[in-house]
Amino acid sequence: MNRSQLFNHIIEKQSYLCVGLDTDILKIPPHLHKERDPIFEFNKQIIDATYKYCVAYKPNTAFYETLGARGWESLQKTLDYIPKDIFTIADAKRADIGNTSAMYARAFFNKEESGLDFDAVTVAPYMGEDSVKPFLEFEDKWAIVLGLTSNIGSQNFQTLKLANGNFLYQEVLKTVATWGSADQLMFVIGATKASEFADIRKIIPHHFLLVPGVGAQGGDLQSVSQHGFNSQCGLLVNSSRNIIYASSGLDFATQAGNAAKAIAEEMKEYLDKFL
Amino acid sequence: MNRSQLFNHIIEKQSYLCVGLDTDILKIPPHLHKERDPIFEFNKQIIDATYKYCVAYKPNTAFYETLGARGWESLQKTLDYIPKDIFTIADAKRADIGNTSAMYARAFFNKEESGLDFDAVTVAPYMGEDSVKPFLEFEDKWAIVLGLTSNIGSQNFQTLKLANGNFLYQEVLKTVATWGSADQLMFVIGATKASEFADIRKIIPHHFLLVPGVGAQGGDLQSVSQHGFNSQCGLLVNSSRNIIYASSGLDFATQAGNAAKAIAEEMKEYLDKFL
Repeated sequence: MNRSQLFNHIIEKQSYLCVGLDTDILKIPPHLHKERDPIFEFNKQIIDATYKYCVAYKPNTAFYETLGARGWESLQKTLDYIPKDIFTIADAKRADIGNTSAMYARAFFNKEESGLDFDAVTVAPYMGEDSVKPFLEFEDKWAIVLGLTSNIGSQNFQTLKLANGNFLYQEVLKTVATWGSADQLMFVIGATKASEFADIRKIIPHHFLLVPGVGAQGGDLQSVSQHGFNSQCGLLVNSSRNIIYASSGLDFATQAGNAAKAIAEEMKEYLDKFL
Repeated sequence: MNRSQLFNHIIEKQSYLCVGLDTDILKIPPHLHKERDPIFEFNKQIIDATYKYCVAYKPNTAFYETLGARGWESLQKTLDYIPKDIFTIADAKRADIGNTSAMYARAFFNKEESGLDFDAVTVAPYMGEDSVKPFLEFEDKWAIVLGLTSNIGSQNFQTLKLANGNFLYQEVLKTVATWGSADQLMFVIGATKASEFADIRKIIPHHFLLVPGVGAQGGDLQSVSQHGFNSQCGLLVNSSRNIIYASSGLDFATQAGNAAKAIAEEMKEYLDKFL
């Protein structure tokens, strides 16, 4: 999916919500355990209940890898089930030396080989240019590079001050943005740093930002939207646990739909107000 | 496997060689394609031919993920086939926020859930403390954190000068070393920086270092050994392509064995000389 298609979906649905499919076998409702593939069955019902309110799904690969090969199968079935007008993100935080990153890119983008054809993969920047560029060689596919993350550990290295006066994450944004265009690259920017969005937009005005952590990780959707929007919205705001675990009972899908709807309604308001 | 067991294996075998099982379906000998699981068959023969000369195997997960669920099965069969006195490393370069890193740790360490029980996983440091610590909560299991990598992209961020005068990778080594002991943590240190080993040993004198890139990525085994050894050897030196693709013919396993043997003989010399 390319940038203008993504923007069109945002306008049509009046939502920039990304639903994180962080599906934990230990947290799904007990009645699903009798299914042949409980993880897929959970995801299927969550997707049915939420897809009207979101423009993206983001399964985090850790939750599937914990189940080994059968987890990988659940991931593939989930991806196949997601309607084609929805942007799909493998939240995998991969990166390795050039030829190995190219294997990861094939793993997530090349359906013929791996069974998966996500629109985007999240990528860790520490190993530099040759570790990121292989993800940029697929048409209408995206690398979403970690900039400033929302967890407490972001303070260990990402906010270190460099000799040139920048914070490390600012240098990462500035440098990575030279490796590809805003049609191939997005950045992960933690929602707990809404005050920094204005500064970040000076460095990367045109890129989409994937904002995790509205909800369980804290954050402020209004402030993020006010300071983070660009002319093409430029934000995908993720919520995982607050939606998919809104209820642990038989009504889990209905409650997930309600939680997604509530966020989407707030987003409509901010699109009207700030875009 | 704990540190003294690993050191004992190094002394017994007179080798600190790690063989990288970066098995690419496009590069294995054509006659293996008729096998039901060509990747596993290749690995099995490579292991049979090389295990006398090495103390560790390191499959890079990218090469298995490219094949989706069946690649994950080949990885599991490969791990099950490796003799128990060999240290096993999932070269996965994972890390995420705390609860998600915990899922990755279970994916690679908890056989009951995932089918995999590696001794160690490589971990990317960018997301900080809560992304690394979940890997340290398993007895006799290891996190091998990226310090200074051997690829050209290591120059983008790892060698940035900080306001405090350190390079970023030095700060990473120093900080990460406070999160666990030398019985749980190792670091990836690129072999092309042999001149920097003495400085690195000042920061982390006791840790094992995983040194990639002797062979295809360049490097100098003598210099690395001379400057990198500590009293318990403290080095695992990896070679992948130079061993596993030593020949692309029917004799690929024999030639892999010969290539591993040649490196091990050199290592024996350096253990005699420098340890």
